Amino acid sequence: MKRRVEQRGRFITLEGGEGVGKTTNLRLIGDILARRGYDVLVTREPGGTTLAEEIREVLLARRDERVTPLAEALLVFAARAQHVHTVIEPALAEGRWVLCDRFTDSTFAYQSGGRGLDVAIVEQLAAWVHGTRWPDMTLYLDAPAGTAMARIADRDHDRFEGEPKAFFDRVRAAYRERARSEARVVEIDASRPLADVSADVTAAVERFLAGVACSA
Amino acid sequence: MKRRVEQRGRFITLEGGEGVGKTTNLRLIGDILARRGYDVLVTREPGGTTLAEEIREVLLARRDERVTPLAEALLVFAARAQHVHTVIEPALAEGRWVLCDRFTDSTFAYQSGGRGLDVAIVEQLAAWVHGTRWPDMTLYLDAPAGTAMARIADRDHDRFEGEPKAFFDRVRAAYRERARSEARVVEIDASRPLADVSADVTAAVERFLAGVACSA
Repeated sequence: MKRRVEQRGRFITLEGGEGVGKTTNLRLIGDILARRGYDVLVTREPGGTTLAEEIREVLLARRDERVTPLAEALLVFAARAQHVHTVIEPALAEGRWVLCDRFTDSTFAYQSGGRGLDVAIVEQLAAWVHGTRWPDMTLYLDAPAGTAMARIADRDHDRFEGEPKAFFDRVRAAYRERARSEARVVEIDASRPLADVSADVTAAVERFLAGVACSA
Repeated sequence: MKRRVEQRGRFITLEGGEGVGKTTNLRLIGDILARRGYDVLVTREPGGTTLAEEIREVLLARRDERVTPLAEALLVFAARAQHVHTVIEPALAEGRWVLCDRFTDSTFAYQSGGRGLDVAIVEQLAAWVHGTRWPDMTLYLDAPAGTAMARIADRDHDRFEGEPKAFFDRVRAAYRERARSEARVVEIDASRPLADVSADVTAAVERFLAGVACSA
């Protein structure tokens, strides 16, 4: 007799630097999940609530004032606290799936890797803000900084996108370290044409869904 | 022979709920220090830099969305990190005096006392954001919540000022606990007429300055 396991929502995040194709692949993943009949909430960080979107604007605005790494990390986690508490957790509790563009892996990559903030601070903030709530699966789109920067060269750059290549090299190194150390993170080579990247993203999502089906 | 001690700036903060006369007494203290020839930087929290003032607006705006206590505390400390790092510490390092409307005692009072956030989180955030930098003197203007609320009844209330009396009772209790446990905090009864309050503020500042003169 098949054991009845209560249906629960899953939390999937998409990670990567600028210019790696996050937007297109987020839509792709959302479509796959919706076709399987899951009720999917698609959201993003920083953001996802009115307050958190206001914090996003403060974070991304280009400014003369140099933002200290600690202030930046505290802003990111303020937005995250609001997002997790008022949007993500309630959705998961209702059995909905949550698909989020960026989460705490981004903070390890940008504020710790990129800005040099002590990783222990990021870990403590994560523990306060979301406790043991980590994504069930994270897709990390990886590309060399140079490749990614060339792709966004004609965009109007926000405060992060305007950083020099060395910054993005550190961000990438921190992301890859997360991908190595966290079993939930699937690293996908995003330096290839988008069709190849999307094929790998689709395959990774299908594998994840097969696992979910087996556990149900 | 009098020992030569290097002149250093002092950090003075003014604390208290709404309607206790902080604005008037901040000006009074600034005038006393300026008359003594000190180079005084008058600033406020949350705020004091362009970024931190933007965070202040996000914090004070009335909104339908309930702001979680942790998100609120992280926003406060994000503004503080920026303020301490780019304004307060550089000013003190130059030998200037810093007179600040609110500092971390406010976070103990509002976010821990008022909102119920774990005091250990506030302590850890304070340690990250300003380490051992605490005010040399803090004047706390104390008044019962009812008295203070009556004084601001005809103001256009921000998100904090619109809280119920029970919130301000908790804020006051937390402030008084700080005043009891921190030797640098001078508690002044602000339920009396402003002239009496200002006389006590003046006396407290004069005593502090006498101590500074003796140590120089």
